[in-house]
Amino acid sequence: MARRTIAVLGGTGRQGRGLALRLANAGYRTVIGSRDPDRAAATVREWGANYDRITTTSHGDAIATSEIIILALPFDSVASTLAQHAARFAPASCIVDVTVPVVFVSGNAALTDVPEGSATEHVRAHAPSHVGVAAAFKTIPAHALDDVAHPLDCDEFVCGDSPQSRATAIELIDAIAGLRAIDVGPLSRARSIEHLTLLAIGINRRHKIRDARFRIVGM
Amino acid sequence: MARRTIAVLGGTGRQGRGLALRLANAGYRTVIGSRDPDRAAATVREWGANYDRITTTSHGDAIATSEIIILALPFDSVASTLAQHAARFAPASCIVDVTVPVVFVSGNAALTDVPEGSATEHVRAHAPSHVGVAAAFKTIPAHALDDVAHPLDCDEFVCGDSPQSRATAIELIDAIAGLRAIDVGPLSRARSIEHLTLLAIGINRRHKIRDARFRIVGM
Repeated sequence: MARRTIAVLGGTGRQGRGLALRLANAGYRTVIGSRDPDRAAATVREWGANYDRITTTSHGDAIATSEIIILALPFDSVASTLAQHAARFAPASCIVDVTVPVVFVSGNAALTDVPEGSATEHVRAHAPSHVGVAAAFKTIPAHALDDVAHPLDCDEFVCGDSPQSRATAIELIDAIAGLRAIDVGPLSRARSIEHLTLLAIGINRRHKIRDARFRIVGM
Repeated sequence: MARRTIAVLGGTGRQGRGLALRLANAGYRTVIGSRDPDRAAATVREWGANYDRITTTSHGDAIATSEIIILALPFDSVASTLAQHAARFAPASCIVDVTVPVVFVSGNAALTDVPEGSATEHVRAHAPSHVGVAAAFKTIPAHALDDVAHPLDCDEFVCGDSPQSRATAIELIDAIAGLRAIDVGPLSRARSIEHLTLLAIGINRRHKIRDARFRIVGM
């Protein structure tokens, strides 16, 4: 099976790095998009030989050459990045949003209020209309994703603006060993998925663990 | 160990019935509070001999004679019921809120907007200040709770306004075979728990199952 090309915008962060390598290991051509491609290339070289297959380029070129664009950017820069590169998305491309905007209020984590209702609906509002949008990989802790030798024995939740978008996100999840994709439906479910992340953060802090994640019982 | 008395307000619904019997089976004195105690008594008699230990009385008397008050009422009637019986709560009593207000918008389930942020914070705002408030039993499907021969092999999430309130809710969960209590912290986490319920409803509908529920991996 010919694997598609995946851009990971913000791919030098821990979450992006883990996703990029796990998806490269699964056979995808994986390219990290960065505002500073030279620095990104240097960063990837520092990661070592395992990461040799992962290339780096600008945000715009990564978007233009990929069928799937994973958004692992800081949430605050999502809208401007999408606006800046709106003309470069390929016709049938799909954005997979992995962001969860969290703020700490009096020491407690909380979700940032987003006018569109959720981070992924914010992405939908700012992405070109011909590009699909799905949410995935929101609930797995970044350091667990990044520990690529460690299988991820949990479920990962997907919602999206079309069956095609959801199928794209599900394909990526199913390509990673140990993950099971749970399709939870329309994009309006994104805030519920983001609340899972918030709960996991709260559970980690309260119980002094690092890896709380979810599995659905009964299916 | 002397078991405490538990009132289940709204205990003739399926969720309340399942909770009442499971907690009675665990050794608690369990009383169903109802706006119409005679009808509630008739209903409980119809349930059969298994339910003989469960008594029925008015909301006010159930509240006054119980250390733990489970709110399994329709969400819309919570505030008025609490206001009407505010004077009857015992000094160290604790409310365990199990409600999740869901509306269906264009065929999709959504959480009702609640000014206080969540159903349980709504309860906190309307309960007497000396009464503790915790959330629990929000994510287990009512019919699974009610199928008392069936063990519940999943986690159940607790938040509360004090360590004492959370301990009360955790005690009830731990008393039911197969359940593990997950303490997620302050009452401000209630909305996240309610989003779990919403996700489970969405998963059930999408995947044509009935029993989606949650387990935390990594703890």
